[in-house]
Amino acid sequence: MTMDASPSPASRPQTMAEKILSRRGNAAVYAGDLAVVEVDQVMVVDSIAQSFIERMERDLGAEPKYPERVSIVIDHVAPASTVSVAQAQKEAREYAARTGVRLFDVGRGICHQVLMEEGLARPGWIVLGSDSHSTTYGAVAAFGTGMGATDIALAAASGKTWLKVPQSVKVTLRGELRPGVSAKDAALEMIRVLGADGATYQSVEIHAGERFTRGERMTLANLCVEAGAKAGLVVPGGEILTDYGYDVPEWVYPDPGARYVREIEIDLGALAPRMSVPSEVDNVHDVAELRGLKVDQVFIGTCTNGRIEDLREAAGVLRGRRVAAGTRLLVIPASSRVMEEAMEDGTLLTLQRAGAVLGTPGCGPCMGRHQGVLAPGEVCVSTSNRNFIGRMGDKDARIYLASPAVAAATAVAGQIALPEDLAAYSPSA
Amino acid sequence: MTMDASPSPASRPQTMAEKILSRRGNAAVYAGDLAVVEVDQVMVVDSIAQSFIERMERDLGAEPKYPERVSIVIDHVAPASTVSVAQAQKEAREYAARTGVRLFDVGRGICHQVLMEEGLARPGWIVLGSDSHSTTYGAVAAFGTGMGATDIALAAASGKTWLKVPQSVKVTLRGELRPGVSAKDAALEMIRVLGADGATYQSVEIHAGERFTRGERMTLANLCVEAGAKAGLVVPGGEILTDYGYDVPEWVYPDPGARYVREIEIDLGALAPRMSVPSEVDNVHDVAELRGLKVDQVFIGTCTNGRIEDLREAAGVLRGRRVAAGTRLLVIPASSRVMEEAMEDGTLLTLQRAGAVLGTPGCGPCMGRHQGVLAPGEVCVSTSNRNFIGRMGDKDARIYLASPAVAAATAVAGQIALPEDLAAYSPSA
Repeated sequence: MTMDASPSPASRPQTMAEKILSRRGNAAVYAGDLAVVEVDQVMVVDSIAQSFIERMERDLGAEPKYPERVSIVIDHVAPASTVSVAQAQKEAREYAARTGVRLFDVGRGICHQVLMEEGLARPGWIVLGSDSHSTTYGAVAAFGTGMGATDIALAAASGKTWLKVPQSVKVTLRGELRPGVSAKDAALEMIRVLGADGATYQSVEIHAGERFTRGERMTLANLCVEAGAKAGLVVPGGEILTDYGYDVPEWVYPDPGARYVREIEIDLGALAPRMSVPSEVDNVHDVAELRGLKVDQVFIGTCTNGRIEDLREAAGVLRGRRVAAGTRLLVIPASSRVMEEAMEDGTLLTLQRAGAVLGTPGCGPCMGRHQGVLAPGEVCVSTSNRNFIGRMGDKDARIYLASPAVAAATAVAGQIALPEDLAAYSPSA
Repeated sequence: MTMDASPSPASRPQTMAEKILSRRGNAAVYAGDLAVVEVDQVMVVDSIAQSFIERMERDLGAEPKYPERVSIVIDHVAPASTVSVAQAQKEAREYAARTGVRLFDVGRGICHQVLMEEGLARPGWIVLGSDSHSTTYGAVAAFGTGMGATDIALAAASGKTWLKVPQSVKVTLRGELRPGVSAKDAALEMIRVLGADGATYQSVEIHAGERFTRGERMTLANLCVEAGAKAGLVVPGGEILTDYGYDVPEWVYPDPGARYVREIEIDLGALAPRMSVPSEVDNVHDVAELRGLKVDQVFIGTCTNGRIEDLREAAGVLRGRRVAAGTRLLVIPASSRVMEEAMEDGTLLTLQRAGAVLGTPGCGPCMGRHQGVLAPGEVCVSTSNRNFIGRMGDKDARIYLASPAVAAATAVAGQIALPEDLAAYSPSA
């Protein structure tokens, strides 16, 4: 994929979203403008693949303009749980074979994680995904956003998309997280401060300096959509992205003096482990207030927290301990690479010995479609990103969102707990 | 569980089935007699748990007479794939908690494997399971048989069951398997010779001398139900069972001169790798005749072939190779212990590096209810025990049954293949 080398002719300071949309549209644009932009990668998940193919072939009569810019990922219900799901996945494979678009089949992992691992989201790129958490690509300074099958198909057919340039919210993270407090806690706090519809159709521009790994940045960018955001862009800091091998263009940084519709600061040093309580992501409390609630299922995984560092964080808590009787701990690595790495370094064995139930890399029960659907009345602590009514199964199940460390501690205690509470639980031999 | 120490007062020579049913009924019985016998273990799987509980509590108004003789295993659709499945599993957990019966929850593994690992099937015992492959317990000289919810409930409530003593077929395995030929091949050949309804309501008594590990004996006993058998009893040989720590009572062996309705001999040395072709288990051919058929999915797992030796057999073929593009390889260990052992010895890493997709220990897609359901027209090579129409998904999918080694070779070739065919497939680095 080529990219115009000349800077966009901006007349006044731009936000990061304005920068990227100007560059990929070859015209300086600002919040409120309509922009027609090149799309660097279109991502289609299994659950929308049939609609996408129908739009492409029946409605548009089109082939993908740039097959190398389209990826289909079979992750939402993988392996298939029903014949109709299996049929849809079969059609996706056949479509990929006849058009030459990339296919990531069952078990490769969750779309956002896989695209990131494969270098299919890069600084300055525009990535459209048929999944709402496509804001995740902002972790590497790509403008990532979710769209429906029709918009996705138009982008695949034309190589472009159009959108209204979003206003931006500036979120500045200051101070340092205390031990035991993670990027997930910061992300939940950010959503609490923004509010569930507090950044609707806005770009959340996160200024975190040199803090946070790529994975942690993914957690932050991922959650932005829970404030209604169009995109969540984490400003590259120091060598963090170049250390991963990314080329970070000079032009991608926001200009001093860019206009923000709102500016927020969060003091990381003041944060304790946080938890979203049912049934809104922005209903965030300290875990310490929620201690003692009996939990039926704990789920560690998803595009929010299914990476190797998340599994290691969980393993650190679970080492030498056992999951409580009466509580199930599901661990689903975000990708096959994460699975392999966790096997190689012993993380998976630690989790297995503690009584974790491993699942196939993919979305797992996050959307309540298989692999751990909740029954009426059940309580789940999950490292995922949504706790809406009915999200993981029955409408009378309740979901609490937390970090991998809190999830792991909860699994050992059988009730909502912090790792520091586990001194009372004698480790098994 | 206590067992009467005095031998049954048999007046003429007895088969192994007659021996066990006499001993556990305290009266000498022969084929055709009705026997009322003590039941040493009742096994209930998740998919029948609701019916079982309804029979117990609503119809019989009974509690389990011996809670320690009842095990509930959540394995058929685990983790839960729908709200109704989740609800049924929740009720099973609650039932176990209020009655004190054993519960093996999501991820512990497949019922037969778990009971075997837990010492809940032992030589001379009678084990009733709510799963047709309960003949598996015959591997350790237990009379294992499948029954429906009502019979299972009556056994749990009374501690006894009644049944007509089956006639016996004597299957003698002679000679030695050649390298690359496994107990699964012998089992498939046995079913071919017996025929799909060739042993209906009979006990298949397998004389294999000192051949075969416990796991291989499980494979043989497991398949017996595919000939319609009531039980499949592998005669203990040498130290094989005592090496696993079992106490093998002297009385359990069949008497010389016992009456068999049919006697069959199979020359193991003459066997090549075998395969059941759609859609009958007894439609068995040499794999060599079937080479080259394109395969969409390969499944290694189940109560037939999901044990550590099966995974090692597959890993031996897959080491340094990759699953073919366009073919999916699902590997689902039979239990959490198998999973752990495969992690510890590197088997799982070998499989993962080859591109296998791992799943949660349990039945996997064997019954077509989740984790790899087949689409119309798809072809699957499976190490499981049934290739009926619609078994693993769509009625127009086709299932071929084979050994783990053949399944692994097929995954690498992307078409039905033998391990020896893979010289043509260059190993990856």
